[in-house]
Amino acid sequence: MPKISQRGIDMPASPIRKLAPYAVAAKARGVKVYHLNIGQPDLPTPQEGLDALKNIDRKVLEYSPSQGYQSYLDKMVGYYAKYNINLTAQDIIVTCGGSEAVQFAFMACLNPGDEVIIPEPAYANYMGFACETGAVVRTITTHIEDGFALPSVAEFEKLINERTRAIMICNPNNPTGTLYTREELEQLRDLVKKYDLYLLADEVYREYVYSDQPYVSAMHLEGIEDNVVMIDSVSKRYSECGIRIGALITRNAALRAAVMKFAQARLSPPLIGQVVAEASIDTPQAYHKAVYDEYIARRNCLVEGLNRIPGVYSPMPMGAFYTVVSLPVDDSDAFCQWCLEKFSYEGETVMMAPATGFYATKGAGKNQVRMAYVLKIDDLKRALVVLEKALEEYNKAGK
Amino acid sequence: MPKISQRGIDMPASPIRKLAPYAVAAKARGVKVYHLNIGQPDLPTPQEGLDALKNIDRKVLEYSPSQGYQSYLDKMVGYYAKYNINLTAQDIIVTCGGSEAVQFAFMACLNPGDEVIIPEPAYANYMGFACETGAVVRTITTHIEDGFALPSVAEFEKLINERTRAIMICNPNNPTGTLYTREELEQLRDLVKKYDLYLLADEVYREYVYSDQPYVSAMHLEGIEDNVVMIDSVSKRYSECGIRIGALITRNAALRAAVMKFAQARLSPPLIGQVVAEASIDTPQAYHKAVYDEYIARRNCLVEGLNRIPGVYSPMPMGAFYTVVSLPVDDSDAFCQWCLEKFSYEGETVMMAPATGFYATKGAGKNQVRMAYVLKIDDLKRALVVLEKALEEYNKAGK
Repeated sequence: MPKISQRGIDMPASPIRKLAPYAVAAKARGVKVYHLNIGQPDLPTPQEGLDALKNIDRKVLEYSPSQGYQSYLDKMVGYYAKYNINLTAQDIIVTCGGSEAVQFAFMACLNPGDEVIIPEPAYANYMGFACETGAVVRTITTHIEDGFALPSVAEFEKLINERTRAIMICNPNNPTGTLYTREELEQLRDLVKKYDLYLLADEVYREYVYSDQPYVSAMHLEGIEDNVVMIDSVSKRYSECGIRIGALITRNAALRAAVMKFAQARLSPPLIGQVVAEASIDTPQAYHKAVYDEYIARRNCLVEGLNRIPGVYSPMPMGAFYTVVSLPVDDSDAFCQWCLEKFSYEGETVMMAPATGFYATKGAGKNQVRMAYVLKIDDLKRALVVLEKALEEYNKAGK
Repeated sequence: MPKISQRGIDMPASPIRKLAPYAVAAKARGVKVYHLNIGQPDLPTPQEGLDALKNIDRKVLEYSPSQGYQSYLDKMVGYYAKYNINLTAQDIIVTCGGSEAVQFAFMACLNPGDEVIIPEPAYANYMGFACETGAVVRTITTHIEDGFALPSVAEFEKLINERTRAIMICNPNNPTGTLYTREELEQLRDLVKKYDLYLLADEVYREYVYSDQPYVSAMHLEGIEDNVVMIDSVSKRYSECGIRIGALITRNAALRAAVMKFAQARLSPPLIGQVVAEASIDTPQAYHKAVYDEYIARRNCLVEGLNRIPGVYSPMPMGAFYTVVSLPVDDSDAFCQWCLEKFSYEGETVMMAPATGFYATKGAGKNQVRMAYVLKIDDLKRALVVLEKALEEYNKAGK
């Protein structure tokens, strides 16, 4: 039998899926599982998107242009303008989800062996895409005690060497929910300028910023126009994870020309998804307000509830719909598995994502989990009760 | 400004697109362009697929499973059974078009620097995906004089060395329309068995086989079950290029486990496309018969017409809807550009894909073009008239 490639072996398994078989087994035993582990919003897709889907009247579902439909590109320019991100349609390349945008960015910016610095805990699939493309991820650890704030310039500089090509951030952050301040972003601007690096900015959660401060995008930073690559996606914005529509956005024309060659090789982004995403830009503000208010209520419910459980701590996340939480356990991988495999309280249990999968540093985050607040308030309340009982029983048993 | 990666520079531009600006300019001058250059079928998508699209009644367009929907996987098993390809649902991983299936296969089977042998002329994007993933393509040249038949075992063995990991074929072939015989496939079986290689078989054109012989899939070959990876796509089968639904299929469980990690990193294949593709499996035989008959009529019209033009030669393709044609010109790149830039006959011209983009061997195919017969018969007839006039005028001018 021929051998699997080394990257096929090295490729990390998804940390949010590795406990999936235990969840299946728990459900088979009749236990109800509260899914705090995944980022699939339960909120409805906007009616504008669903109507556009219903109204598709084509006889041939043909290739769309590799860059994406012109009408969609044009409309996105208007969407970004509302955030003071001033673009032309040619700055945008439509991708198959944010995932493909990250792959394109890694392929176009980094040679195999080149390094990208990413604050950890980080979105785990960045590590996967790095493995696929030969990029080397150097993580810079952020800490729960200071709300996962960006480390100092000096800390970044310790990691910068002749192979460093990029710094990558997710802002607002998955998995921590951290929102970087203008000061933090300007620090990054100065760094990428000084060392001539790319700044890869995954900003798919910009709708979910819970601060009074104006939203600061990497695209707002002056003097590094050719350095910034923004990764975007409609998945979370419109609860349209399944249509696989994202975008890679940069003002760097040479970089876009390279990315377009990757885009042409895979022919086109999904046609139907683009139709849905284009229509969804017309979603009325009332939808966004309702979703926003719901997430704030859920966040407050979850985070306040967590901090009332003895030994549990969560910072108050200022963006996205995740939080990384420290638990009074030594090994959250073992605890999360135990919750699914051995525990139930009144026929229910909780599924969380052990945080170790979001750190590249061995041993980091061992007492942490990531939770997504994409459940209804009543379910979150119930999940908190179940979690508290689980911790009591687990620690009583001296695990 | 930070540098583009080397693969961003090396990535080949798509040969079917490089003349696109000239086509745009021709249209701007009011010239009608017959597109013989692209493989976008003009035939309608089956009503079953379009109806499924209309009937989608979901409130949330959520992620689908990374492997694809179980119901779609199950239904595909029945589809393949009709071709005597006996699978279980777990052998199949749904991908974003055949493109992603090729990327996954290259990433899982080949380390950077490992070699894959591909008969040329070849589907040009294989070269692009190899560039993306660090695979090295070694081409084995096939020749128009013998209908682009597979070279002998001895020719293959000349290319096999310690870095060779795979042989890749497209059968029926894009760009040549060649259908490999059972004998040719058994020769490949013996080779991959002897040298413990993967056999990557892109079989997206299996509906378009114009021979009386039974269709032979790489999946039919005995004794190399763990070596074969089949690439598939619904794009051409149902005229659904835009929905981006393909599949990677292998009986090799270890390889599937590696591919699933790549599949999980990108989260999921397009949801809506899967719904359309699943319903399209119910397309009645009458649709396929009508499409098949239409392609045979077009093929005969085009190929017979080409062979009547002095100095032009096309083999009779036995599959797909392409043919590679030799023209009485020295440099088909220059001729194809000239057709768009300088020529028109009664306000019309033709766009063809210069064949050099399908060869890795420098200078090979310089007098050849690829044509796709995805136009209506009347348009094909007219395109033949225009092409004949173009060749007359081009050669009279002593180009």
